Amino acid sequence: MAQKPSIPKGTRDFSPAEMVRRNYIFDTIKDVFQLYGFMPIETPAMENLDTLLGKYGEEGDKLLFKILNSGDFLAKADKSLLAAGDSNRVTGQISEKGLRYDLTVPFARFVVQHQNEITFPFKRFQIQPVWRADRPQKGRYREFFQCDVDVVGSDSLLNEVELIQIVDEVFRRLNIRVVIKLNNRKVLAGIAEIIGESDRMVDITVAIDKLEKIGLEKVNAELRERGLSAEAIEKLQPILALSGNNAEKLSALAGILASSEVGSKGVEELNKVLDLVNGLDLPTDVEVDLTLARGLNYYTGAIFEVKALDVEIGSITGGGRYDDLTGIFGMKGVSGVGISFGADRIFDVMNQMDLYPDDVTAATQLLFVNFGEKEAAHCLRLAAGLRQKGIRTEIYPDAAKMKKQMSYADKKGIRFVAMVGEDEMTKGLITLKNMQTGEQSAFGLDEVADVVGR
Amino acid sequence: MAQKPSIPKGTRDFSPAEMVRRNYIFDTIKDVFQLYGFMPIETPAMENLDTLLGKYGEEGDKLLFKILNSGDFLAKADKSLLAAGDSNRVTGQISEKGLRYDLTVPFARFVVQHQNEITFPFKRFQIQPVWRADRPQKGRYREFFQCDVDVVGSDSLLNEVELIQIVDEVFRRLNIRVVIKLNNRKVLAGIAEIIGESDRMVDITVAIDKLEKIGLEKVNAELRERGLSAEAIEKLQPILALSGNNAEKLSALAGILASSEVGSKGVEELNKVLDLVNGLDLPTDVEVDLTLARGLNYYTGAIFEVKALDVEIGSITGGGRYDDLTGIFGMKGVSGVGISFGADRIFDVMNQMDLYPDDVTAATQLLFVNFGEKEAAHCLRLAAGLRQKGIRTEIYPDAAKMKKQMSYADKKGIRFVAMVGEDEMTKGLITLKNMQTGEQSAFGLDEVADVVGR
Repeated sequence: MAQKPSIPKGTRDFSPAEMVRRNYIFDTIKDVFQLYGFMPIETPAMENLDTLLGKYGEEGDKLLFKILNSGDFLAKADKSLLAAGDSNRVTGQISEKGLRYDLTVPFARFVVQHQNEITFPFKRFQIQPVWRADRPQKGRYREFFQCDVDVVGSDSLLNEVELIQIVDEVFRRLNIRVVIKLNNRKVLAGIAEIIGESDRMVDITVAIDKLEKIGLEKVNAELRERGLSAEAIEKLQPILALSGNNAEKLSALAGILASSEVGSKGVEELNKVLDLVNGLDLPTDVEVDLTLARGLNYYTGAIFEVKALDVEIGSITGGGRYDDLTGIFGMKGVSGVGISFGADRIFDVMNQMDLYPDDVTAATQLLFVNFGEKEAAHCLRLAAGLRQKGIRTEIYPDAAKMKKQMSYADKKGIRFVAMVGEDEMTKGLITLKNMQTGEQSAFGLDEVADVVGR
Repeated sequence: MAQKPSIPKGTRDFSPAEMVRRNYIFDTIKDVFQLYGFMPIETPAMENLDTLLGKYGEEGDKLLFKILNSGDFLAKADKSLLAAGDSNRVTGQISEKGLRYDLTVPFARFVVQHQNEITFPFKRFQIQPVWRADRPQKGRYREFFQCDVDVVGSDSLLNEVELIQIVDEVFRRLNIRVVIKLNNRKVLAGIAEIIGESDRMVDITVAIDKLEKIGLEKVNAELRERGLSAEAIEKLQPILALSGNNAEKLSALAGILASSEVGSKGVEELNKVLDLVNGLDLPTDVEVDLTLARGLNYYTGAIFEVKALDVEIGSITGGGRYDDLTGIFGMKGVSGVGISFGADRIFDVMNQMDLYPDDVTAATQLLFVNFGEKEAAHCLRLAAGLRQKGIRTEIYPDAAKMKKQMSYADKKGIRFVAMVGEDEMTKGLITLKNMQTGEQSAFGLDEVADVVGR
C-alpha cells in the first residue's frame, strides 16, 4: 500500500509563493550586510558533537539532533549500558555528529580553524537553517533560519554603531517599524555591585523588567522574596525611579554608579554609542532599556533587542558584544559583537501586515498558448527571442483546451498571454492578451517585449 | 584543555571568496530557471525515514544519515536485538528521521502531499544540500548541493526541448563549453527486444559504452561473457556499426528497430526533440548517444547527460523523463522530466579554468581610514551617504597604524581607500586613493560615489 506522505513535525515545506517572499527578505538583509562590508560564509549542517556539546547548557545538549553513526554502530556501544537502557550514556557511543543548533558556535569554530586565512577584524554574515529538537508550537519550528552578522577581532564601539545602522536600514527597507533597545551588561554589573549583590545581577534585572507591569511595590516584594537584603533594595530605589529620555537616564545613572568602575564604564559605552548614533539622524528610535537581560552569561558589553511596533511578536532581532567567543576552542582574547535577525518571525510580521511590494514575484510574465505542433514550434523560437530580452516566458507544453491553458495562466499569476495561430504566423505577429484588463491586440516581437517588460 | 576544532570528514566550510563564486553559479542557474517559468521550492533537511527508505536501493539505505530519536530512545528498542548487536534492525527502532539523500524523492513527496494546492503542469526548481554517508574522496562530499529542475504533469516533448535550452543557456552564461548527450530508454528497450534479450538492456548498453575504448571484437567477447547468445550478438552488429551525425544514426536506427513498437516510438521521440532543437539554432551541440545508461531503472523516455569539453570531469549535469515519480506515494500517472545540475562539479570546472568574470565580487568598494574618534564620527556620516548611493563602504573600526589599515584594505581586495583628516574635514573633502594605481586626489562626496561606483 502506498504511504501517505508527511514531513517531520516542526518542519516545513516552502511553496513557490512562500519562497519568493522569503527570498525577498533574505536578499534585503544580505544587500544591507554587504553594503557595510560584511561577507558571507557557510558551514556544514553537521558538526562534530565535540564542537556542539556543552555549549548550550544541559537543556541545549538534549535539544541537539544527533546523527546515528553509519554501519555497525552498536559494535562500539557498551553492552551493559545498552542492557541497562541508559540512552544518555549510549548516545556518545553511537553518535559522533549533530546538526548545528545555532550559527554562533559553528562561527567560533570557523574562526579558530581558519584563523590563519582570515583578515581581522573579520566581518562575516551567515544565513543558514539550524535545528532544535524543541517541542514544536505556533511560530516555533524544529528547522528554522538564522541570519547572523558579526565583527570579531575589534573592540571598537564603532561596530556597535554599525550594527544599529544595519538594523535601521534592514527594517526601513522591509517597511517594518521597530524600536531598537539598548543595554550594557557592565551597567547591570555596576548596579549589582553598588547595591552589594554582585552575584544577583539576573534576579535584579528580571525584577526591574516587571516594573511597568506590576508596579514598584510588587517589584520590591519580589526582590525580598528572591532574598535581596532590605539595604540592597533601598539602594536600588533610585534606579527603579529612573525616567526620562536616554540622556536623562544616563546622566542619572552616571551619578548613581559613580563609585562602581565597571558601572561607570558601562554608562560611558552607552553614551559613546548613543552620541555617534545621534549624529547619524536615524529614523529608527534607539532606547536605553535596563531590563534587557538576554545572554547575560556570554554578553560582556552592549546588548541589543529589536521590537516590531505594530505587531505583538516579541523580539525579532537581537545580539550583543562578547569578549570570548573563541575561547572555548582555544583562541583567547578575540572580542566581537553581533546580531541575529529572526527570519521566521520577520516572515510572520511581513505576512501578517502584508508588507511585500507588488513587484515581489518571480512569476512568468508571458505564456504562449499552445495551439498544436506547428504553432508550438514557431512559438518556441518567439519565446527564445523574448527570453533573450529578459522576459520570463513559458509555452504551455500541451495543446490542451483553451480554458485549461487560460486557467493555468490565471493560477500562476501570469499577466500576459500570447496567442499565435495560423494567421499570426503568416503575418509575423503576436496577439497579446492582458489578463488583468482583458485587452487584446496584435504586436511585433519587439513591441511585445516592451509591453510585457513595462 | 581546549578542543582542536575540526569538521566531519566529507564536509566543507565555505570562505567569503568561495561563497561569492558559488553564489555566482547558483544565481546564474536560478535566473535561467526563472526565465523559463520555473519557480523555487524548498523542503526540510530531515524527512521521515518512511519517505526515504527503499527508494535508493539497499546501498542507498545504508548511505542515509539517520537522526537518533530524542530523549530515551533505547526504551523503544528491542532488548534482544540490542544484546545481539543487530545494528541493522535496531536502526528503525531508535531512528525515525533521516537527512535527504537527493532532491527527487522529497520533490515526489511534496507533489503528492500538496497536490491540491499545485497548478499542473508544475514547473519547479530546488537548490539545496543533500547528504550521503559515502566514503569521502576527491570531488565527492558527504554534504553537497543539487540544483534540480523538473516539470511534472505533462508528457509533452516540448519539456525536453526546454530543458535542453536551459542547459545551453546556463553553460553559455557560465562560459563552460559543453556537449549535450541525448538518449532514449525506449530505443534501448527496442534494441534489447529485437535481438531477443529484453531483460539484458543494461548489459547491452554497458557493452556498447566500451566500443570506443576497447574496440568491436572485445565488446563482442564481453557480450558473450555476459551470456548473450551468438544470434543476439549477430543481430546487434548493425547497431554497433552505427555512425554519422544524429540524422544518419536515427535513420539507420529507424530501419533496424522497425519491427519493435517501443523502439520505433523511441526513435520518433528523439527525432521530434532534435527537430525542435535544430529549429532553435542553439550554439551547444546536442548528440544522440546510445551509450547513456543513467537511471535505467526509473527513466522511461529521454535520458540527458552534459559533458564539459575542456575539462576531464565526467558528467556535470544529467536527467531524464520518468513516468511514475509519485507512484511510490500513491499518486499514479504523473509523468515528468527533469535535470540536475552538479553544482560542486561546475564549481570545480569554473575554478580550474578560472571562468569567473572580473566583477564577481561582493567586496567592499571603499574603506575609510580611521584617524581617531573625531574623524571617525565624521566619516560615519560620510559613509552613510555613500551607502545610500549603493557604494559598499566600511570604516576601519580602530585608529590602528596606517600600515595595518592599508594592509586590511589590500587583503580584502578593497579598491579605494578614503582618508579624511583635520584638513579634509574643514574643507568638506575626501582624499581618495586608488589601491591599484596608487593615484591619490581629493573629491567631494558626490564625486567620490561616481569614481568608486564606476
